[in-house]
Amino acid sequence: MTILDPVDLTKRLLACNSVTPADGGAQAVLAEALTSIGFDVHRFSTGEAPDGPIENLFATRGKGGRHFAFAGHTDVVPPGTGWESDPFVPTVRGNLLYGRGAVDMKGAVAAFVAAASRGQPDNGTVSLIITGDEEGPATFGTKALIAWMAERGIRPDMILVGEPTSSARLGDTIKIGRRGSVNIWIEVPGVQGHAAYPHLASNPIPALAAVIGDLSALHLDSGTDWFQPSNLEVTDIATGNPAANVIPGSARARLNIRFNDLHTGADLVEQVREIVLARAPEAIVTARISGEAFLTAPGTLSGLVSDAIGDCTGLAPELSTSGGTSDARFLSRIAPTVEFGLVNATMHKLDEAVAIPDLLALTDIYAAIIRRALA
Amino acid sequence: MTILDPVDLTKRLLACNSVTPADGGAQAVLAEALTSIGFDVHRFSTGEAPDGPIENLFATRGKGGRHFAFAGHTDVVPPGTGWESDPFVPTVRGNLLYGRGAVDMKGAVAAFVAAASRGQPDNGTVSLIITGDEEGPATFGTKALIAWMAERGIRPDMILVGEPTSSARLGDTIKIGRRGSVNIWIEVPGVQGHAAYPHLASNPIPALAAVIGDLSALHLDSGTDWFQPSNLEVTDIATGNPAANVIPGSARARLNIRFNDLHTGADLVEQVREIVLARAPEAIVTARISGEAFLTAPGTLSGLVSDAIGDCTGLAPELSTSGGTSDARFLSRIAPTVEFGLVNATMHKLDEAVAIPDLLALTDIYAAIIRRALA
Repeated sequence: MTILDPVDLTKRLLACNSVTPADGGAQAVLAEALTSIGFDVHRFSTGEAPDGPIENLFATRGKGGRHFAFAGHTDVVPPGTGWESDPFVPTVRGNLLYGRGAVDMKGAVAAFVAAASRGQPDNGTVSLIITGDEEGPATFGTKALIAWMAERGIRPDMILVGEPTSSARLGDTIKIGRRGSVNIWIEVPGVQGHAAYPHLASNPIPALAAVIGDLSALHLDSGTDWFQPSNLEVTDIATGNPAANVIPGSARARLNIRFNDLHTGADLVEQVREIVLARAPEAIVTARISGEAFLTAPGTLSGLVSDAIGDCTGLAPELSTSGGTSDARFLSRIAPTVEFGLVNATMHKLDEAVAIPDLLALTDIYAAIIRRALA
Repeated sequence: MTILDPVDLTKRLLACNSVTPADGGAQAVLAEALTSIGFDVHRFSTGEAPDGPIENLFATRGKGGRHFAFAGHTDVVPPGTGWESDPFVPTVRGNLLYGRGAVDMKGAVAAFVAAASRGQPDNGTVSLIITGDEEGPATFGTKALIAWMAERGIRPDMILVGEPTSSARLGDTIKIGRRGSVNIWIEVPGVQGHAAYPHLASNPIPALAAVIGDLSALHLDSGTDWFQPSNLEVTDIATGNPAANVIPGSARARLNIRFNDLHTGADLVEQVREIVLARAPEAIVTARISGEAFLTAPGTLSGLVSDAIGDCTGLAPELSTSGGTSDARFLSRIAPTVEFGLVNATMHKLDEAVAIPDLLALTDIYAAIIRRALA
């Protein structure tokens, strides 16, 4: 079996322009590499424009024993303008490899494939769950892969998501959970009218202000061992009324709640709805839950990832639940899930770059994780 | 001396396109009519584009005795589209005379000139204070005329403003005062940031909501014998923040206060400023006072106008202080001022029209007012 070079594979992936929902040939590159090292590769495309079609890939090797899965994505965010070199022409300057997706997360995908090329125990199974829709609406990506796996009775025992979780140094941070996020829109209707004749109008703003007062005073929780306190922010207020002598016909507010695993999005929406309706019975409350909170309590999986990192780097990684959402919110429903990958300093930025020594070290760490997971 | 026909003069004024700041020849028509009935006419133009230049006219007849002045304007609001006939081609259908300004207030100006053409006592003075900037910013209009008069030591004993004050029937309402109006803008600064990292940001919305709560609970007064209670309305709230995951960097509100003669605009601005700064010490409060409240307490002037209306129509007019601002806010500073004119149902609307019998009856009433004022 070939031993694959993570730097070479990263370069080949970076050369593909795969801004969501485009694939740019990235998953074909990956499929070829995986096939060459003994994986069965399954690919399917789903969804329609403008958010699709999306390329998805599931690859597996081995039968029986413990089933360890690596999850990641080949799509990237738009590069923007102002790069020093073409964002889709992998370029090495010093010990840095530049290209959109270098750390988020083509480098980690390549490192895992290279780690897997070093072999695995006979009695274990290794899979890759790779989507092209993580940076987009995530409608046709990991959710579709989970459904595809469920139809075939495939359920890993543990999942490692290769998102760039390292902060200052490779290995300093593992994410064992993420807060959930929900956006809520409140519209308080009133009766529009002339400010000189208020008895003919009904101003919705005082009721909305009282609602905001109640929401600002709301104590959601005091945090947990692993999560900071849940937090509610009013991110917008508006009437859209340009006329100084007109009482507006409606007033709106928008909230964002970042919440820990003491709550579900639906419970929070209901709690907000009750507070709103107590002040403004005619108000309309709508919500979109971007992701539920999840926590993979420290245990076997985080332990073996920490140990592998310790072996290779000497670091004792912090177990964190900070930051935004990731596809781990979906994957954690089917198996214990943690996230570990490259240093995230340049992700989503101009001149995104991975340190080549980090790519090599991450390959070592991922190989150590595979060994420990299937031991 | 010629006896002038108010319907003919109204038509000649309506034919002039005098949307503020344009004059369209209206004041020349007026000057010619006034000269023909013995008035000394003084005209001057002031201001620059875009709000000027503005045509103003002061006309006076007689010497000594009591000095009674009529105030009005020849400018009109834009006609808008959808009129049945050209808004600047006076058109009679049934007993209605159509044209922009028919009731607000070329008809009343013509009625007063026609009333004056019927003569006046030897021992009295009658003046007309006519501007072309009442519907606009009112910067170069009545204020300039008052300054012009002051320079020449001209000060009427009483002033009648010919605004369309009648509601359902000609003669049902005199305005003896108007509320003042002030607009106030509040900006609460914050620190913009990501909703997932609230400790790095400072959300200005809760403080603004608390300010609005305080302002909504504010009791300004309980009204007076002649005024309804002063009233504060929040007419807009805004952050202009389109991003659901961003804490906005500032939050704004706009207020309108309609106030009676228990307050001045400046006092109210100060009161609001104190309330705002108690909640948000960094907030910026700006204000524009559109007009102070005024009241000409019921007495000689309102009595003689009421009596003249009663003689001609049999109605006992209501003495009102309702509605928006008018140039009476400036004129009331130099002499007792009341407002009386045509039925205001069609003012500022499409197909503005005056009933020809109202025009004739208003001429009779204005003639009776002149007689009583100079008696």
